[in-house]
Amino acid sequence: MFEAAELGRKVSKSEYKDALPALRAGLTEAQQRLRDSGVSVLVIVEGVEGVGRGEVVNRLNGWLDTRGTETHAFWDVSSEEQSHPRYWRYWRSLPARGKIGLFFGAWYSEPLMRGTTGEWDGARVEAAATRIRDLERMLALEDTLILKFWFHLDKDTQKQRLKARKQDPDSRWSRRRNGDKLLDYKAFVGIGETVIQATDTALAPWYLIEATDPRYRDLTVARTLLKAITERLDAEGPVHREEMLSHAPSLPEAEEARLTVLDQVDLGQSLDKSRYKKRLEEAQRRLRALTWKARDAGRASVLVFEGWDAAGKGGTIRRLTAGIDARLHRVIPVGAPTDEELAHHYLWRFWRQVPGSGRITVFDRSWYGRVLVERVEGLARAEQWRRAFHEINDFEQQLCEHGILVHKFWLHISEAEQLARFRAREETAYKQHKLTDEDWRNREKRPEYEAAINEMVFRTSTEHAPWTLVPSEDKRFARVAVIETVCERLEAVLD
Amino acid sequence: MFEAAELGRKVSKSEYKDALPALRAGLTEAQQRLRDSGVSVLVIVEGVEGVGRGEVVNRLNGWLDTRGTETHAFWDVSSEEQSHPRYWRYWRSLPARGKIGLFFGAWYSEPLMRGTTGEWDGARVEAAATRIRDLERMLALEDTLILKFWFHLDKDTQKQRLKARKQDPDSRWSRRRNGDKLLDYKAFVGIGETVIQATDTALAPWYLIEATDPRYRDLTVARTLLKAITERLDAEGPVHREEMLSHAPSLPEAEEARLTVLDQVDLGQSLDKSRYKKRLEEAQRRLRALTWKARDAGRASVLVFEGWDAAGKGGTIRRLTAGIDARLHRVIPVGAPTDEELAHHYLWRFWRQVPGSGRITVFDRSWYGRVLVERVEGLARAEQWRRAFHEINDFEQQLCEHGILVHKFWLHISEAEQLARFRAREETAYKQHKLTDEDWRNREKRPEYEAAINEMVFRTSTEHAPWTLVPSEDKRFARVAVIETVCERLEAVLD
Repeated sequence: MFEAAELGRKVSKSEYKDALPALRAGLTEAQQRLRDSGVSVLVIVEGVEGVGRGEVVNRLNGWLDTRGTETHAFWDVSSEEQSHPRYWRYWRSLPARGKIGLFFGAWYSEPLMRGTTGEWDGARVEAAATRIRDLERMLALEDTLILKFWFHLDKDTQKQRLKARKQDPDSRWSRRRNGDKLLDYKAFVGIGETVIQATDTALAPWYLIEATDPRYRDLTVARTLLKAITERLDAEGPVHREEMLSHAPSLPEAEEARLTVLDQVDLGQSLDKSRYKKRLEEAQRRLRALTWKARDAGRASVLVFEGWDAAGKGGTIRRLTAGIDARLHRVIPVGAPTDEELAHHYLWRFWRQVPGSGRITVFDRSWYGRVLVERVEGLARAEQWRRAFHEINDFEQQLCEHGILVHKFWLHISEAEQLARFRAREETAYKQHKLTDEDWRNREKRPEYEAAINEMVFRTSTEHAPWTLVPSEDKRFARVAVIETVCERLEAVLD
Repeated sequence: MFEAAELGRKVSKSEYKDALPALRAGLTEAQQRLRDSGVSVLVIVEGVEGVGRGEVVNRLNGWLDTRGTETHAFWDVSSEEQSHPRYWRYWRSLPARGKIGLFFGAWYSEPLMRGTTGEWDGARVEAAATRIRDLERMLALEDTLILKFWFHLDKDTQKQRLKARKQDPDSRWSRRRNGDKLLDYKAFVGIGETVIQATDTALAPWYLIEATDPRYRDLTVARTLLKAITERLDAEGPVHREEMLSHAPSLPEAEEARLTVLDQVDLGQSLDKSRYKKRLEEAQRRLRALTWKARDAGRASVLVFEGWDAAGKGGTIRRLTAGIDARLHRVIPVGAPTDEELAHHYLWRFWRQVPGSGRITVFDRSWYGRVLVERVEGLARAEQWRRAFHEINDFEQQLCEHGILVHKFWLHISEAEQLARFRAREETAYKQHKLTDEDWRNREKRPEYEAAINEMVFRTSTEHAPWTLVPSEDKRFARVAVIETVCERLEAVLD
């Protein structure tokens, strides 16, 4: 494929000079429009060594308003980044709406490097490409405009370029990718071709740029960027809607049936007060030791709590965290997002709370809001919540691959029990604030919620990140069941 | 002083049990009121080893709603924390409005530890205490309720406690502060007394707690916390106003005079086009090499740009950053704060942008807004902007102590030149968006701004973080002057 970038394309000095003023004015104007558009722009630059990625990015920074751009080189992995899943460092750098992020390599660096050196085999590189495709698709569908530039030089030109660079005092700062060793040209280009082909999508296209002539290279990148931003801002309504729909998972008819996984939960289980006390204390003691052990082993946990209103999430979380040293856990109540969170992809607010090694994050409600309340209340469009299942599975899988234990609890109560608890809340002065009109409204939509829960469990209960449906008609039973489940998973993991 | 905490205070089991329900209900209620109050609560726990700080904090977590509390232990310093000024890790952990932060030791840990081992001498510990007093005062005056608990045990009890702990399997996880070595009791208590006395203020009081009896210890802490929160929320209007005023710096009469430092700026300086081009390119090349060198040396820079509307901040920053590799710098346009920023102290949003080793952050407007626009427009109360000078100096000093180069530029133009530029903007289509009604209004307040600028320069131009007043009547002159100034400072620092 790279023959297409060995054609000797050039731009003369005067052509370049003539083109520049309009191009720069265009970029400035586009950036101004971008600011309030709700769209973020992600530009990834890749290519063979010596191709001048730094030069291009510096040129773009000179032409753009740097107050709206952020450049990320992803050099050294910090200890905090090391203690989080692989993509955490990219998530924390993603540009907010209205901004342009210029990324060197980003998620491509690792597969390209390790593929070239042979550290990763073909299958592993393919797997990485699949993950990348998913990520980019997900971002693109939520208002990120993605442009990927691959800069190409033929082998001889690369050689000359690197030689010339050695003699240029200004260039002595440019870094080699692989320590001091030059990557093998043929191997790198080969892996590059594989990766490009696997990740070149309509939502996140690659642009192959012939980089022999810097003027051609820089002009072409800037023009491509300008055109893409302008087209995106000119487009009416959300883009790519057809593709969204064509990729939406089809739903089986059975889903509409009234019988759900919830009907299989045995709500009759209970614990009397004295057995409860004993088992709770025992489970908490066990949990305390296990969580310290997990800390020493560097194993983090993510615990998700979802459930019907008044099912007892708060009380259960309290008993759970009472069994974990306060220095090890953090409870994240998931309410309305902050404006920084709103300016990013909906998973960004959860990525930023992913625990570092040995820590435990307890989510009181979670990313499952997307396929529960947002789905049922119509706050997310159908194609949004439909693809969320895959997005969520991928997110959780990344946590698991990093060694994080993921467990999800649905606290289940019957309609009658919920009513009884609502009534009790109405009558208890200090609990009245816990009952809102919304709670009553949600109750009316129970069938819709049941269908949504059923599909959620069906699609997202995986071996590595299972759902436990907790019979919570009896609060005591539920609390003990949850803590014991966490203990069992920790024990299995720590063995 | 610790005799006051060796009196054998105790709470019987039944007393404890009787007191608990009301106390817990009170805490829950207080926490609910706190949520929307705009106040954040910071609890610091300190004391001799074996005193059960972890137990107390766990107990509090059990009694409080953990969804509104955050516990921070400050164990290992991450590489990112290492690459930032000392207090960065505390700033990033500070509780937002409505939340309670439970801090183990926080900024006390280091002076106590290093003072005890003798690594820091008395003067150094004193200096640390002074900095702490300043920080706590600053937080307290901006809606943080600070409570500091010092838990005391006499030497014999400590010995017994540590011995018993060794045999208790549940306690094997508690950590020693100083690796495996027990800190010398007498030395620790001695330094503790010094530090307590130096940092015990009305705004951030120490509570000395006798910790021999865990029930007494925990009840007393919870009661003190409850009382403090309740009193604070019951108080009408901002608290401590008297103290604010009594500590406000007195302003010399001369400040009101019309003659300011700005009148000494020679606005006649200029550069013709050809000399400008040459000197600009030369300065940028010099800057590029210096900034790479600074990166290799791990020296970060903070560059602040303030100036009159239309003085040319944007254009100057563009020329400056054109001389710095995009991978090394970041431009932060300071506009309206996000809601997460609003939920913290006004310096928090700047602390979070402090560059890591070898990086450069360029602030397009800055924390000086407090003593400029907020002062002149009455957005900050007099006692707020008055004490800001000291707060800002202390902030910048912390950056400098970490080896960060701090430089501040005021771009100065005459009233006439500003008018000419406003007019030109009105007439140029693509520049019209840069001119707002506010710009015209600000112009009318020029005398007030001049007085504010004068005082700002007088109070905050320090040797380590100087102001440069840049004659900007001629944009070319200003741009070159700024870049050359940065180069000179970098050269001096890197030598």
